[in-house]
Amino acid sequence: MTFRVGIINVTGFAGMEAARLLWNHPGARVAAVTGRSLAGQKLGEAFPHLAVYGDFPITADLEGSVDIVFSALPTAASAEACAPLVRAGIRVIDIAADFRLKDAAAFHEWMGQAHPAPDLLADAVYGLPELNRDAIASAQLVANPGCYPATAILALAPAVAAGLVLPQIVVDAKSGISGAGRASGGSFGYSEVNEDVSAYKIARHNHQPEIAQELGNLREGAVPKVTFVPHLVPMTRGIHATCYAPLVRDISQAEVTAIYTDFYRDAPFTSVVAAPPHTKHTLGNNMCLVHPVVDGRNGMLVVVGVLDNLVKGAAGQAIENMNLMLGLPQTSGLDLPAVYP
Amino acid sequence: MTFRVGIINVTGFAGMEAARLLWNHPGARVAAVTGRSLAGQKLGEAFPHLAVYGDFPITADLEGSVDIVFSALPTAASAEACAPLVRAGIRVIDIAADFRLKDAAAFHEWMGQAHPAPDLLADAVYGLPELNRDAIASAQLVANPGCYPATAILALAPAVAAGLVLPQIVVDAKSGISGAGRASGGSFGYSEVNEDVSAYKIARHNHQPEIAQELGNLREGAVPKVTFVPHLVPMTRGIHATCYAPLVRDISQAEVTAIYTDFYRDAPFTSVVAAPPHTKHTLGNNMCLVHPVVDGRNGMLVVVGVLDNLVKGAAGQAIENMNLMLGLPQTSGLDLPAVYP
Amino acid sequence: MTFRVGIINVTGFAGMEAARLLWNHPGARVAAVTGRSLAGQKLGEAFPHLAVYGDFPITADLEGSVDIVFSALPTAASAEACAPLVRAGIRVIDIAADFRLKDAAAFHEWMGQAHPAPDLLADAVYGLPELNRDAIASAQLVANPGCYPATAILALAPAVAAGLVLPQIVVDAKSGISGAGRASGGSFGYSEVNEDVSAYKIARHNHQPEIAQELGNLREGAVPKVTFVPHLVPMTRGIHATCYAPLVRDISQAEVTAIYTDFYRDAPFTSVVAAPPHTKHTLGNNMCLVHPVVDGRNGMLVVVGVLDNLVKGAAGQAIENMNLMLGLPQTSGLDLPAVYP
Amino acid sequence: MTFRVGIINVTGFAGMEAARLLWNHPGARVAAVTGRSLAGQKLGEAFPHLAVYGDFPITADLEGSVDIVFSALPTAASAEACAPLVRAGIRVIDIAADFRLKDAAAFHEWMGQAHPAPDLLADAVYGLPELNRDAIASAQLVANPGCYPATAILALAPAVAAGLVLPQIVVDAKSGISGAGRASGGSFGYSEVNEDVSAYKIARHNHQPEIAQELGNLREGAVPKVTFVPHLVPMTRGIHATCYAPLVRDISQAEVTAIYTDFYRDAPFTSVVAAPPHTKHTLGNNMCLVHPVVDGRNGMLVVVGVLDNLVKGAAGQAIENMNLMLGLPQTSGLDLPAVYP
Repeated sequence: MTFRVGIINVTGFAGMEAARLLWNHPGARVAAVTGRSLAGQKLGEAFPHLAVYGDFPITADLEGSVDIVFSALPTAASAEACAPLVRAGIRVIDIAADFRLKDAAAFHEWMGQAHPAPDLLADAVYGLPELNRDAIASAQLVANPGCYPATAILALAPAVAAGLVLPQIVVDAKSGISGAGRASGGSFGYSEVNEDVSAYKIARHNHQPEIAQELGNLREGAVPKVTFVPHLVPMTRGIHATCYAPLVRDISQAEVTAIYTDFYRDAPFTSVVAAPPHTKHTLGNNMCLVHPVVDGRNGMLVVVGVLDNLVKGAAGQAIENMNLMLGLPQTSGLDLPAVYP
Repeated sequence: MTFRVGIINVTGFAGMEAARLLWNHPGARVAAVTGRSLAGQKLGEAFPHLAVYGDFPITADLEGSVDIVFSALPTAASAEACAPLVRAGIRVIDIAADFRLKDAAAFHEWMGQAHPAPDLLADAVYGLPELNRDAIASAQLVANPGCYPATAILALAPAVAAGLVLPQIVVDAKSGISGAGRASGGSFGYSEVNEDVSAYKIARHNHQPEIAQELGNLREGAVPKVTFVPHLVPMTRGIHATCYAPLVRDISQAEVTAIYTDFYRDAPFTSVVAAPPHTKHTLGNNMCLVHPVVDGRNGMLVVVGVLDNLVKGAAGQAIENMNLMLGLPQTSGLDLPAVYP
Repeated sequence: MTFRVGIINVTGFAGMEAARLLWNHPGARVAAVTGRSLAGQKLGEAFPHLAVYGDFPITADLEGSVDIVFSALPTAASAEACAPLVRAGIRVIDIAADFRLKDAAAFHEWMGQAHPAPDLLADAVYGLPELNRDAIASAQLVANPGCYPATAILALAPAVAAGLVLPQIVVDAKSGISGAGRASGGSFGYSEVNEDVSAYKIARHNHQPEIAQELGNLREGAVPKVTFVPHLVPMTRGIHATCYAPLVRDISQAEVTAIYTDFYRDAPFTSVVAAPPHTKHTLGNNMCLVHPVVDGRNGMLVVVGVLDNLVKGAAGQAIENMNLMLGLPQTSGLDLPAVYP
Repeated sequence: MTFRVGIINVTGFAGMEAARLLWNHPGARVAAVTGRSLAGQKLGEAFPHLAVYGDFPITADLEGSVDIVFSALPTAASAEACAPLVRAGIRVIDIAADFRLKDAAAFHEWMGQAHPAPDLLADAVYGLPELNRDAIASAQLVANPGCYPATAILALAPAVAAGLVLPQIVVDAKSGISGAGRASGGSFGYSEVNEDVSAYKIARHNHQPEIAQELGNLREGAVPKVTFVPHLVPMTRGIHATCYAPLVRDISQAEVTAIYTDFYRDAPFTSVVAAPPHTKHTLGNNMCLVHPVVDGRNGMLVVVGVLDNLVKGAAGQAIENMNLMLGLPQTSGLDLPAVYP
């Protein structure tokens, strides 16, 4: 049996990446794709890199029968599209930010608008299998993590869970430009972005509460204070999060490495590495590489995490969640080397 | 049955790309890899993007039994490594330039050294399936095309074969930097190459005779004069060849398009497209996209060809050739969307 | 005395580059700048790289008294803005394409709209000092060359003027993305343009007739047939034109080099170089580097020309023209090393 | 009078940038340049972007009479070259790291070798005019700051000097690749660095003690603990330092902005800006842009600093120091807009 997947908004980068990754999935196939601006066009023509799909139709709304749906719409629009599906009993993975924060008031504060379906928040499961594998498997609605939070949480989770660090945490994240989405206008024009680094939304990016919420769930009494600063760097794909947390005690590098390695022993897609990882080591695949370093001189834990924002940070993560939800092997369709150089 | 592939010099970009692409091949697997500088190391550790290979050993020489060998050594060194294998009856695909030119004297002239195994030249088959599918299938030694010639020949072959153009041909090719190979020294340093375009080896690059030889084989009496100018552009992967050939007669765009489409009707990896193709539409996959344009005002045919120099221009082409040689479906392991953006 | 310069549309890349280059000009200064979208803002605040200008006002229309005006508006809008100035006796340099083609019908054909001021075409002088120094000096209206034509014409002029080549000319040009202008929308987004090369407007770009017109003026009876193909490469600044023209006779490299060197003996900003030039060798300065190569094997002359599209291809060229028009030394304010790396 | 400047090692990026910037200096000129690997060549030929220098000779050792010397040699080699000059009474600006740390033992620890001239350390002045203008003016030996420390110190100095922050400081710095120097080998090859971000020397880079030393001098009793993590990003020029320091008390954004603005009131080259600055806003000029942000939610001060690593981070800073040492206006030759886009 091959499961049928619907992709809402295949025209964004996350949606088209899901179509790319599903092409060779052994247990699931794309059965329907929507995209209002391109409705009526063929998937393989609208996107030449997906030419393998040929004349597969892009429709305005989901058509035909599907077993599971990915939504890759913008914030709030996604919840509006997902809610009726969820209520109709269809399993949904929301790649947008709509079901990540458990608190509708926090959503309102950080997103600047009311939540369209607050009643669904309680049952939504945060879709990071390294933390929530079993809950994902039985969830009907999964909130796929944001690309920044996925990186930061995977970098920090073992230390926070083990109580190694104080709550004052800094997450300094560098992102490729595809994180800003497709055709994203003048601010992301090549001439403006090339040969440039800049920070944005300093300490007020809406991924900050998502990081704090999930780290806070890892240990009784932990209420992390997360200062999160995202940066744009001139590359297309990749996130590099450098995380800083004061250590609560003297601890050796070996002990920290052991804690991390143990934490991710059963995680197929998060790997603890011995040298500073490069974002490019994960380009196009579903890996997150984590590298913890003890700065003993200053009593600081530094942890680097890297991943491909469109794969482990979006569409690949969604497929990993889908695999768990459908009872497929967790790594189905995702067992891929990275594209290098 | 799964065929066993040996890769000589997995440490170069073409060799490691072959390993990447073979990972998910349904009918063949990497059975041995060599790399003198890294002999004794593990493939999955030496190259983090190939972590899926884990502790697969890199050896100094091919070890164990293999059904077919890819050689990705530098010019001349490759022929030296291939010759004893060929003579021992092993099927070999040479990704280097050593068996492409049929004339040992021309090899000497353009490569600046004598050919190490001229007796093998006559039986070597030029490995471009769009032209030589049957000969490849029965070959024992296949000369995998150069990345520039693959692009230029696929762009020009239908027009030359149909006798549409005069022999005075210009091939203006733009290449990503990975074509220069790994760790290729100061001239290819990031600071020097970024934000820069330059031509090199103007009309004296050793891919020029390869292009002329293969185009010349397409039509009785055709002796193309090919002016070939390669350029480096600041990207990692991709070749864009813009080819110019004077038309011998008035001809409509529709007629040219029909000739091209017909020529590649059965080619799974060369596609005639209706708009100028982008190199990025082929990043990581085995496609070559061809776009012919009639410049009626000036009586000139302009044809653009694009491909990924490490895939259709090297390792993917080698696997396509391998598939034919081993009786596997031509597209095995190569049925992939491109990585975009 | 310091001449006062007005810049119409300082908000585009060419206009702001003029402001950058004029900052340290010893004989002229920016006296007024317009930019409708930013009218009322301060130049040094709207553009942080021009912070030296501080609170210099951006106005909707030229204010105050000016000695000369640069117009950097889009096609047709520029002619509409320039015409009344010219008629009022103000000297004008049009950086747009409006006064380059001598034939209003050709303008209509290539630009897709009627010329707004055809009566001014006859007296407009094509502003390439290497060809028209004296005429520029006495002109009231100068048509600043397009960035592609400037490169191609400077690369080919000595050969065409000397009658060395046949009329069937190919100009294969590679441009940085700033040539597409500021905030130029989705097609030029970083994620789409990075790691990509593509051709566009193959043999139908409106710079083609400009190249043909100016080359045609160089020699009695010459009617060049120019096939022009522009390409976008992933860099911000720079044009690299590779030009191909069949030689009419056997000629040595030394003789061609001598013809070129002699042609540009008195040109301060065009230099004949002995190795393939890099666009980056001209980044930020007003140089054009030209490198002719005889491909004796094929009877073809290959000439590379490179320049910075915003300097010698736009704003620097305008200042050079201004210097001639105002009787200042030709190199005033333009005697600059390039920015490297 | 025009002062005569000698540049030791003009062949590195910092040395050649000094030559670029001095070309239009109104009070000083390059009088001698050395570069062992290129001795005997012409400056304008060896470096096409410096063609304005024409046949200015590159010599093995400084020749002729100079008023001041810049040394741009590698660590330790620079001290060896500077020491005899200093002892002979020549004024020297060392662009290398050799005279920055006051403690010869710390030099030994962080650089891995003994200091070649420890007796000169006491009188060397740290060349950051924002902190040490008067001492620089009268110094005979100036230690030009490292590119990372210049950025971090300028970002943090006002807060540290005012006692606003706790000593546990994080400096997360992103650098363009030119910081690694010229022709810097395989690790900095284009194919490897493009489309990649990575950290290196996490918490063990030798710029860490330099930052701590200088911040520690700003306030009695302050002993900053600086965790410094440098990153490579795929661009040529530019440093972006994001600095994090816990606030000792509630403080408003307005108050912090006022403290910063006041601190740099008389600094011509450091500017406090109201929006996150882009590295590209300083490309090619001597500006440092600083942007402090209060993260009140977490009690954290975040300060971004950006500059061009080869200008304010190296050669421009050296010229600014030279101006002070020679009694020239501080901004001589450095009053430049940035190159944008």
